[in-house]
Amino acid sequence: MICWHPDVEYRFINFLLFSSIPMPKNAISPTRQKDYPEWYQQVVKAADLAENSPVRGCMIIKPWGYGIWENMQRVLDRMFKDTGHENAYFPVFIPKSFLEKEAEHVDGFAKECAVVTHHRLEPGPDGGLVPAGELEEPLIVRPTSETIIGDAFSRWVQSYRDLPLKINQWANVVRWEMRTRLFLRTAEFLWQEGHTAHATKQEALEETRMMLGVYADFAENVMAMPVIKGEKTAGERFPGADVTYSIEAMMQDRKALQAGTSHFLGQNFSKAQEIKFQDAEGGESFAWTTSWGVSTRLIGALIMSHSDDDGLVLPPRMAPRQVVILPIFKNDEEKAKVMEACKALDKELKTLQYHGYRVESFVDDRDLRGGEKKWYHVKRGVPIRVEIGPRDLEKGSVFVGRRDQPKSYGISQAEFVSTLTDTLDEIQNGLYERALAMRAEHTRSIKSWDKFEKFFTPKNKDQPEIHGGFAECYFVDCPETDEKLKPLKVTPRCIPLDQDNEEGYCVFTGQKTKVKGIFGKSY
Amino acid sequence: MICWHPDVEYRFINFLLFSSIPMPKNAISPTRQKDYPEWYQQVVKAADLAENSPVRGCMIIKPWGYGIWENMQRVLDRMFKDTGHENAYFPVFIPKSFLEKEAEHVDGFAKECAVVTHHRLEPGPDGGLVPAGELEEPLIVRPTSETIIGDAFSRWVQSYRDLPLKINQWANVVRWEMRTRLFLRTAEFLWQEGHTAHATKQEALEETRMMLGVYADFAENVMAMPVIKGEKTAGERFPGADVTYSIEAMMQDRKALQAGTSHFLGQNFSKAQEIKFQDAEGGESFAWTTSWGVSTRLIGALIMSHSDDDGLVLPPRMAPRQVVILPIFKNDEEKAKVMEACKALDKELKTLQYHGYRVESFVDDRDLRGGEKKWYHVKRGVPIRVEIGPRDLEKGSVFVGRRDQPKSYGISQAEFVSTLTDTLDEIQNGLYERALAMRAEHTRSIKSWDKFEKFFTPKNKDQPEIHGGFAECYFVDCPETDEKLKPLKVTPRCIPLDQDNEEGYCVFTGQKTKVKGIFGKSY
Repeated sequence: MICWHPDVEYRFINFLLFSSIPMPKNAISPTRQKDYPEWYQQVVKAADLAENSPVRGCMIIKPWGYGIWENMQRVLDRMFKDTGHENAYFPVFIPKSFLEKEAEHVDGFAKECAVVTHHRLEPGPDGGLVPAGELEEPLIVRPTSETIIGDAFSRWVQSYRDLPLKINQWANVVRWEMRTRLFLRTAEFLWQEGHTAHATKQEALEETRMMLGVYADFAENVMAMPVIKGEKTAGERFPGADVTYSIEAMMQDRKALQAGTSHFLGQNFSKAQEIKFQDAEGGESFAWTTSWGVSTRLIGALIMSHSDDDGLVLPPRMAPRQVVILPIFKNDEEKAKVMEACKALDKELKTLQYHGYRVESFVDDRDLRGGEKKWYHVKRGVPIRVEIGPRDLEKGSVFVGRRDQPKSYGISQAEFVSTLTDTLDEIQNGLYERALAMRAEHTRSIKSWDKFEKFFTPKNKDQPEIHGGFAECYFVDCPETDEKLKPLKVTPRCIPLDQDNEEGYCVFTGQKTKVKGIFGKSY
Repeated sequence: MICWHPDVEYRFINFLLFSSIPMPKNAISPTRQKDYPEWYQQVVKAADLAENSPVRGCMIIKPWGYGIWENMQRVLDRMFKDTGHENAYFPVFIPKSFLEKEAEHVDGFAKECAVVTHHRLEPGPDGGLVPAGELEEPLIVRPTSETIIGDAFSRWVQSYRDLPLKINQWANVVRWEMRTRLFLRTAEFLWQEGHTAHATKQEALEETRMMLGVYADFAENVMAMPVIKGEKTAGERFPGADVTYSIEAMMQDRKALQAGTSHFLGQNFSKAQEIKFQDAEGGESFAWTTSWGVSTRLIGALIMSHSDDDGLVLPPRMAPRQVVILPIFKNDEEKAKVMEACKALDKELKTLQYHGYRVESFVDDRDLRGGEKKWYHVKRGVPIRVEIGPRDLEKGSVFVGRRDQPKSYGISQAEFVSTLTDTLDEIQNGLYERALAMRAEHTRSIKSWDKFEKFFTPKNKDQPEIHGGFAECYFVDCPETDEKLKPLKVTPRCIPLDQDNEEGYCVFTGQKTKVKGIFGKSY
């Protein structure tokens, strides 16, 4: 049973006595409403997730941000292994000639390559060091690894018995982006890239869709972020792919974020790289390949899905630590008793299992004022704060603050422990439901160009970023459609897999079609 | 109870009937005795651990090799966190000016740097792509991250309250080595690098030694590889360090392999990079920093510590999979029953815990001849093979092959399962004891230069690599000693932390000293 706790009063007096920090209205300034892009930067900063580095476009992922990435890795890695994939590691450098093998592919990446041209430094004429030892062939720091992995596959695959080959790599990649934003678009980022080869087209297509399903499952059930699974239009395909699937999520500014992609590469790369095999009948065939990836961009998606004007909000399954225990005391005598109780609770919580992993709790015993300490954890999005003071000890109770609720409450310690994993699930599910409701509120089925234009035109000039959201429209995937969309800075996000197969008229060309797409502004 | 199983006969007949592959005397050719370096390459190949890539000096780590690295990461990561460290991620690129800040440091790495000079490719005069978009300042692909992390620390550390700062990074690094060998020395390798900053010299020294202890614990108790903890001599220190500690292991060719290092950097980097803090009294001080690392080189050390002329031998705590289950059948009817039993056993084994992690077992149901399949797993070092045939089903028994023993044996399935983790520990401990005995056999206390020279001179001209092993000698760390050692290609491996403090005469200079060192040829 949850009850309002008499310690509230004690805490309030304590707060007045010992804290000179006024309770802020909101911990983050500006608010989402006022300036969304700046709010995002401030949340990243206040939660201590990452910062820009002295290397243009490269970020430093700080421990709290990296802890989220470790959780993502841990869960995804298990999902990949459970679907029959193994991890391996390939060189960070790609010879220029490899990249040139697949024409569309190199076109897609040539403009944003970090090129290694020398292999040492030596003293130059003016005292400083200068590059020396020029390489015969320049090396590209991998922007993605289709070509270097494909080369290995061409050696590894000889017979149909060697297929399917299902490999994943966790790695850093570099794409020399000119305009960068922490997590969302950085010159270097961390990701995983799956690469598989199959004997038949059908099997490769199934793999591509299965991995899209894995990403959607992860996004919805672990990140608490609803997504739309769909196919990309021709203009938005991965360079060199026959089909690109993606999961698309709506952020709180109603923009779309592509959160993961899965590509059916057909025989394009296997032909360019000679990935051939002898089939059961003795004939020779080219393999069918796929690739799929998600990156540290997911952290940006996570931040923008759930956070509020007080900072980061983390779904419990993504939080590096689910529970922080805050000891409350006035003197050394109280401190000794309270600390002992806090440590005992911490130890007990760590014995609990949450979705297959240990509950991560910790005691924050830093010498900080109570208000300052509380806000520190609010801004970092710790799902549950537990305060323990001398009165709690007497009564065997604790005082609980949930990041997803404004008010704190008292509860018996035994009940807190026994219901903890349920409470975590309640927070997790609540965040998902909230994000889903937000998306539903800002998704419209639109049937005319006039309404489409209006939907994407900001209503308020002071907030040029705020527009309608997602438009669901009948459309024909053709250059005419793309041209008409350009001035609005709206793109087809995807053709959802889930189609009702009814007929309508393309909003952009007027043609009859059974295909519906999702349109939006995007990151 | 273990008994010789009547199925042995059945298996032998089965082998004669269905296998055309003769039982090899040894699976690896040449043997260790005949050509150790070539034996090493062949073990790596036969166990499918890694291969050279088309990029000079860079390796591809294949799934079985990467699985070992994942186990190393998992255990070490837990040890780092348990000793108060957090993971973070820093840019792969280091501006040239950063590397130049610490003079000794840049001297140590300038000759082997991969240098990025351009940020795109564009069509060149002869049709191919050429580097374009020259960078104002060249970027170095990190050979190690002291300078880029130190720069972040200078921003993060302001007050004594910000200390200690204890960060670890898992990353790829590049050192342009001219002579490379898989795992042991490669242009790109994977590693972890710890970087910490402290308020006092004492605390930084304690950290340096604590992490040396963590590495030694990991090497001995997880890799089953005995190591000597010691300090490096002045000539062998990390560029920019005041003190370098290392763990040194003896390989089966009696050479030393430096398996991990922990550096006390004094205030060298903090002064070069302005890592300053306000102390409790309001004064300003430079922080004391440390760094420490182990790399995929450990996989080379693991291979050379335990493997034999049949291929890889893995300590169970390092094996990606501890148990392989091999179904034996002659027809479809047998197959159905046997496969069911194999899958049930697999499921049961996976419920067992081994040193905090799930036992990893799997059923190898590939359509291969029995002998071929067995040797496949022998060469890959799977600690335990379990065969199940129709007769085993009738009797509730299994037929077990241990990688550390030549003979297989029958045992009841219930007993196999109930004793499995004990058996794994027995294998683990046995490998450690064997390696320890090997090291003891080839370590001599040597007191004269004559005997020292003789110890390191090959006895057999056909085996120029085989020498005495480790020599334990009184010595004085000075240029004279280093000069005398050069022609022998012997180096001081370390000054063991464990010293008896007795007095003797330096084998190289004749001076009186209380210091003993370990000397050897090295990788």
